[in-house]
Amino acid sequence: MNLSMIAYIVGCVLEIEAALLLLPAGIGLLHGEQTGWAFLAVAAGAALIGLIVVLRRPKNTSFFAREGLVATALSWLVMSAVGAIPFRITGQIPHYLDALFEMVSGFTTTGASILLELERLDKCMLFWRSFSHWIGGMGVLVFMLAILPLAGSSGQNLYLMRAESPGPTVDKLSPKMRSSAAWLYGIYLGLSLLDFTLLMIGGMTAFDAACLTFGTAGTGGFGVVGSSFAGYSMMCKVVTTIFMLLFGMNFNLYYLLILRRFRDALKMSEIRWYLLVFLFASGTILLNLRGAGILGRDAQPIDAFFSVSSIMTTTGYATVDFDRWPTYSRMILVAIMFSGACAGSTGGGIKISRFMIYFKAVSKELRRMAHPRSVRHLRIDGKRVEDGTMQNTFVYLVVFVAIYAASVLILALDDFDPTTTFTAVAATINNIGPGLGRVGPAGNFSGFSYLSKCVLIFDMLAGRLEIYPLVIFFLPSTWRKQA
Amino acid sequence: MNLSMIAYIVGCVLEIEAALLLLPAGIGLLHGEQTGWAFLAVAAGAALIGLIVVLRRPKNTSFFAREGLVATALSWLVMSAVGAIPFRITGQIPHYLDALFEMVSGFTTTGASILLELERLDKCMLFWRSFSHWIGGMGVLVFMLAILPLAGSSGQNLYLMRAESPGPTVDKLSPKMRSSAAWLYGIYLGLSLLDFTLLMIGGMTAFDAACLTFGTAGTGGFGVVGSSFAGYSMMCKVVTTIFMLLFGMNFNLYYLLILRRFRDALKMSEIRWYLLVFLFASGTILLNLRGAGILGRDAQPIDAFFSVSSIMTTTGYATVDFDRWPTYSRMILVAIMFSGACAGSTGGGIKISRFMIYFKAVSKELRRMAHPRSVRHLRIDGKRVEDGTMQNTFVYLVVFVAIYAASVLILALDDFDPTTTFTAVAATINNIGPGLGRVGPAGNFSGFSYLSKCVLIFDMLAGRLEIYPLVIFFLPSTWRKQA
Repeated sequence: MNLSMIAYIVGCVLEIEAALLLLPAGIGLLHGEQTGWAFLAVAAGAALIGLIVVLRRPKNTSFFAREGLVATALSWLVMSAVGAIPFRITGQIPHYLDALFEMVSGFTTTGASILLELERLDKCMLFWRSFSHWIGGMGVLVFMLAILPLAGSSGQNLYLMRAESPGPTVDKLSPKMRSSAAWLYGIYLGLSLLDFTLLMIGGMTAFDAACLTFGTAGTGGFGVVGSSFAGYSMMCKVVTTIFMLLFGMNFNLYYLLILRRFRDALKMSEIRWYLLVFLFASGTILLNLRGAGILGRDAQPIDAFFSVSSIMTTTGYATVDFDRWPTYSRMILVAIMFSGACAGSTGGGIKISRFMIYFKAVSKELRRMAHPRSVRHLRIDGKRVEDGTMQNTFVYLVVFVAIYAASVLILALDDFDPTTTFTAVAATINNIGPGLGRVGPAGNFSGFSYLSKCVLIFDMLAGRLEIYPLVIFFLPSTWRKQA
Repeated sequence: MNLSMIAYIVGCVLEIEAALLLLPAGIGLLHGEQTGWAFLAVAAGAALIGLIVVLRRPKNTSFFAREGLVATALSWLVMSAVGAIPFRITGQIPHYLDALFEMVSGFTTTGASILLELERLDKCMLFWRSFSHWIGGMGVLVFMLAILPLAGSSGQNLYLMRAESPGPTVDKLSPKMRSSAAWLYGIYLGLSLLDFTLLMIGGMTAFDAACLTFGTAGTGGFGVVGSSFAGYSMMCKVVTTIFMLLFGMNFNLYYLLILRRFRDALKMSEIRWYLLVFLFASGTILLNLRGAGILGRDAQPIDAFFSVSSIMTTTGYATVDFDRWPTYSRMILVAIMFSGACAGSTGGGIKISRFMIYFKAVSKELRRMAHPRSVRHLRIDGKRVEDGTMQNTFVYLVVFVAIYAASVLILALDDFDPTTTFTAVAATINNIGPGLGRVGPAGNFSGFSYLSKCVLIFDMLAGRLEIYPLVIFFLPSTWRKQA
């Protein structure tokens, strides 16, 4: 294990975070909030420590998958730990663990909150929460790759990008890692600016539009008022429904569109499945709400579309309290909590492309059982799925279920009802935010014990980093000396 | 597809069922119940139809995996459909679909009931319900293999036994299929007689002891009174706790013990894991109950051991209403609903041995990610797990989850609470019986719509036959003509 390279990367991340912390500091000064100084102080501290680490440039630059996984896990832990300090030292969140929960929830684009009254938070604090969604959505390491001329090889960059990017495989947009990362951030920034503009036209203040754009782009879901999206105009709801869907799509799509390769863009089967799931879920929920007499009285059609888009892309904004909907609608929402968005998007969950691999592996196995002599390879969009990828995708499901079950059992010690316990884990490990019951759109996560909060912090990070970096990081055998 | 061989096998199954139906007929006549005649009538009909089918001995005896899977699925469907007739024609269960639900629940050793008052049923009906557990526990096709000199090759018999027996792989106890099957039934009968004797000593009537032995041996769970096991003596509870555990063990263990190969018996890691899970679950439930102040007041230690043994072996007897326990205890019970018992036992669930394969595949994959050059094969008890078996085991999990999710969504249309909806599927697909909420130990399945009951019937059969036979049977491509 090349510890000095890992330290170097974490040092770079600290420098970046220090720079990013200047933004909420500025917002604080702009609004005349005393608490803005906390961001300046933490930025200075982070910059100093980062500098000390970075100045010791490692001599041995060897860097493999293991180093990539560990560096990614450590970067995210450090980033969250540092980002939580301003909440604590200003007393805006009295306990550090709560502040850490809120910050991990921000960076992992979960949007689960322990805050009881959002309106009591200073603007710079609200801004930092939401801004962390935007940073975490595309990933801070990808950002680093895009802007820093790193000493290492392109192999190193690939390992980092693989460990941080969602999905079973990572497609490089361009042959060079650095320009891939730059393309990704360019598209991300462009779409965000468009969303921001449309929200302003829809009647939001610049502050709200910025914060809610951050949450939409990163598929995070922190709001700036307790009622989340309920109080905004119809136009803002429609725009956000569409933009959540857009940010949940594989960014390769936009790259192909920019290159005018429209035929390749149309061939992306993951996007088709994704839209089909969206239409099926919204359609049956509409029917279910109409059957229950809720449609037109307590919910409008836009609420169904908005909720499905919000949950499926793992954003977590709410226009209504869907926990009051009939069981079918709630169960469909729970189901799409797990399906999640596309690989290569900012969304969480297990990802549509993994489900495509599962589906194809099942049909292959069933065909083999019925007709033992037929041997065919698994293909998606014409590309063969390697056995290694398939194995890895299956193991992913098993580890996911194992972490899920263990988390539910530990949370159950708090003795909340089973629905709350079950969906609290679903909402965090899939990086969504709200669940059902006490953690529904009208509730929050403040009631859990600190042990449970630690578990949920782990789950949010495991969800965002797609389990492996975190598991490898916490595995004792990773740290043992080996040939 | 060799349809004539499949018909022949189903014909044999009908003959066997006709013979078995004479038992409840006898019980009915013994107790002077008019309804006993219904069993005689159905037995005569089944024998006649079976005879017509069997007399047309197939010329082409070619028989492969596909035929084995389809014959197994069809046998179980026919067996349940015929076995349900006596309930319907005597009016003891007014609707045929309810009677079918009860019978499928019996043969699949689930023990989920739609009956509101068990005490209103005639003795011969109660006997038939419980006896179906005993038949379904070891499997009717295995029984057929044990007693009938079938025309086919040993390959044919292997395909049938594989399709009906639980677990990722089937170990043949003896080189010859027929003597393997006979061994299995011998051990099964011997253990059942021992259990029966001990229950009699514990103070049960012969009728109760017989019915409850059937339910224990088959890990079924139908009782003969509404209060299940609550009213019996301490000795009966202790004996049943132990015998449920024994019937949930891989029967290879007993074969090895009979052959005095004690060292091989001790090496069976599945048994060790199974006992560890049992001890962990009972131990933490005891602590949880004590912490909540329930132990000693509303529950005794035996209730914790009994419940864990009952749920883990997927039997489903209850001494207390564990739905009133704290969330942790309920969630542990839900978790062991899925783990289930050992492969090669009469129990249901996903099976401990599958979890062992998952666990080892995960640790292999994690090792590969951290140290890409290490290549090791997966071994269990020194035997290498073939890639095909591993693939099949992974696909099993995916299909299981898919059927589970689809079932929950359809049941959700009945608009019961999420916990009821979720555990109703868990309790049927894992062949347990009681779940939580409205389907808890104090509730039953009568409230569901007929659509939901059809789904649950499918789930029970899918659980008992381990999914593949049923899925292959219902897949259109199986029935298409192919080279």
